[in-house]
Amino acid sequence: MKVVVTGGTGMIGRKLISSLLATPELTDRDGNKSEVTSITAFDVMPPDPPLPDDDRLSVVTGEISDTGAIASLIGDDTDAVFHLAAVVSAQAEEDFDLGMRVNLDGTRIILERCRALDHAPRVVYASSVAAFGGEMPDVINDTVTPNPQTTYGVTKVIGEYLIDDYSRKGFIDGRALRLPTIVVRPGRPNKAASTWASSIMREPLAGHSAVCPVTEESKMWMLSPRRVVEAFRHAQVLDSDAWGPHRVVNLPGITGSVTESLQALSRAGGNSARALVSFEHDPFIQDIVDGWANTFVTPRGDAMGFTADADLDEIVSVFLEDDLEGQHAYYE
Amino acid sequence: MKVVVTGGTGMIGRKLISSLLATPELTDRDGNKSEVTSITAFDVMPPDPPLPDDDRLSVVTGEISDTGAIASLIGDDTDAVFHLAAVVSAQAEEDFDLGMRVNLDGTRIILERCRALDHAPRVVYASSVAAFGGEMPDVINDTVTPNPQTTYGVTKVIGEYLIDDYSRKGFIDGRALRLPTIVVRPGRPNKAASTWASSIMREPLAGHSAVCPVTEESKMWMLSPRRVVEAFRHAQVLDSDAWGPHRVVNLPGITGSVTESLQALSRAGGNSARALVSFEHDPFIQDIVDGWANTFVTPRGDAMGFTADADLDEIVSVFLEDDLEGQHAYYE
Repeated sequence: MKVVVTGGTGMIGRKLISSLLATPELTDRDGNKSEVTSITAFDVMPPDPPLPDDDRLSVVTGEISDTGAIASLIGDDTDAVFHLAAVVSAQAEEDFDLGMRVNLDGTRIILERCRALDHAPRVVYASSVAAFGGEMPDVINDTVTPNPQTTYGVTKVIGEYLIDDYSRKGFIDGRALRLPTIVVRPGRPNKAASTWASSIMREPLAGHSAVCPVTEESKMWMLSPRRVVEAFRHAQVLDSDAWGPHRVVNLPGITGSVTESLQALSRAGGNSARALVSFEHDPFIQDIVDGWANTFVTPRGDAMGFTADADLDEIVSVFLEDDLEGQHAYYE
Repeated sequence: MKVVVTGGTGMIGRKLISSLLATPELTDRDGNKSEVTSITAFDVMPPDPPLPDDDRLSVVTGEISDTGAIASLIGDDTDAVFHLAAVVSAQAEEDFDLGMRVNLDGTRIILERCRALDHAPRVVYASSVAAFGGEMPDVINDTVTPNPQTTYGVTKVIGEYLIDDYSRKGFIDGRALRLPTIVVRPGRPNKAASTWASSIMREPLAGHSAVCPVTEESKMWMLSPRRVVEAFRHAQVLDSDAWGPHRVVNLPGITGSVTESLQALSRAGGNSARALVSFEHDPFIQDIVDGWANTFVTPRGDAMGFTADADLDEIVSVFLEDDLEGQHAYYE
């Protein structure tokens, strides 16, 4: 079966592709287990560093808002689409038009292309806990109404409603995951307002200094890259019945404060690693982060079989095992 | 001040315009009471019957998805926009592309045009209780998550999120009303799945037979045309602070069953009127209606000063007072 990954050269996209190459099994259009024989990574930028050299993998560079490019990308032979391409939070806040074009128009173009196929492909969509904001309870359960306070969050929630409606109409078989903040992200800092949550662990563990722009009490709802890749795969193979009519789920995660993150950092990297983190307050970032939900209960996601990391130490371990070695390349 | 009403030749648009001509006062871009000196009614069809002959009123015919037409319609002199234009529920269910183009693309074009102005105009947006559906509590309160089960409802909810985000960014000063089913609608039946709720009262009161496609137990959340016009005006003049950061409200209304509607009909028109209603079950309509929320508590709307009709007898009285005379024209 053929798989398309939009945002395929991004951090999650790369890891998902590597996972699919190593364990090439998903569910095809007929609901049967099937071997992944072809993966197309679509992104606006060529992969840097390169993706694995593998005959099953091809890379296509283009704009998600380019209808013609998407028509070439997704065809009748496409069984599954992982739609990860998006402009992230701080960037969409700075450039409203870009956020709307990529996150809203781009998603609509993907969905319209899938609708035009001779079958209803499984589409797994990356949404976000940025769906929540404003006045909200201390603990978010599965019934809390999305109330995003960023254009990024708004476009993500709109995408969820489109995924639901396209699925209800039988145009696609959609599944949307509200992702926690993914920690520890390898690579360079990005323009997400949450990027510091990874930086304060990643950089010191790789021997480099990091600046934390928010207070020690600031909390995030977190999931490791390894678990989020598992979640995307699990979302794809779950039966439609397991989703029911509502195709959105809050993923399980763990709540971690800056203080707790730095404690886990000290346990893994010692006082020398901890000493590499300094604080430099950024009210713009603090405001965005304060507006995000950081504590959830996720009975729906739990019942569907999605799983979180055990604790912050596991999150650090995943980085040490999966990414620390490659991380050094970013400083060469 | 200049006012634009999209969907201005529709039922609510006509009544809103008549009300504004009779009592030409709204709130201008600076938050001050101001005289309405110019109203432009925009719609896809010319008004039939004609709108009042008044120097302050002009009619523009065009497509809401025509960016050029909207650029001519809304300008730097526009203080307020009432955005009512939409493809209704059953029609959008039958023609997905039309529903998306008018309700989603059209709303985005209106919002983008308002954003391009030299000021942030007040935009009052017609949303709908069709926002709610699927699994939901017996009584909808202000915290229930929208879960629309029609493309119409999905596009309306997406519009709400856009109204919120454009307001948060300061591009507009937006206000969105989730309208109950408006009963008794004058004129001809339309393609809304709710049209029967008006027909079973309107037609017999005008001496004509009507067919009810749903069971006697079927309930609707209702508001009279007079109250909904009051709601649009009230939404426009309320201070931004009264709305707060969330620019959406569930309007107060009343719950009425088919049985209760027919009882109110009998009280107003006697047994001869009641005898003009027959039942002819339509499972397509019944399914849509069963999926709608019919019972609400609306503390937010109540606190903001929105009001419902006292009972079904008042709803019937409004029709007799405002519309019965004109209704006869539809049968000539």
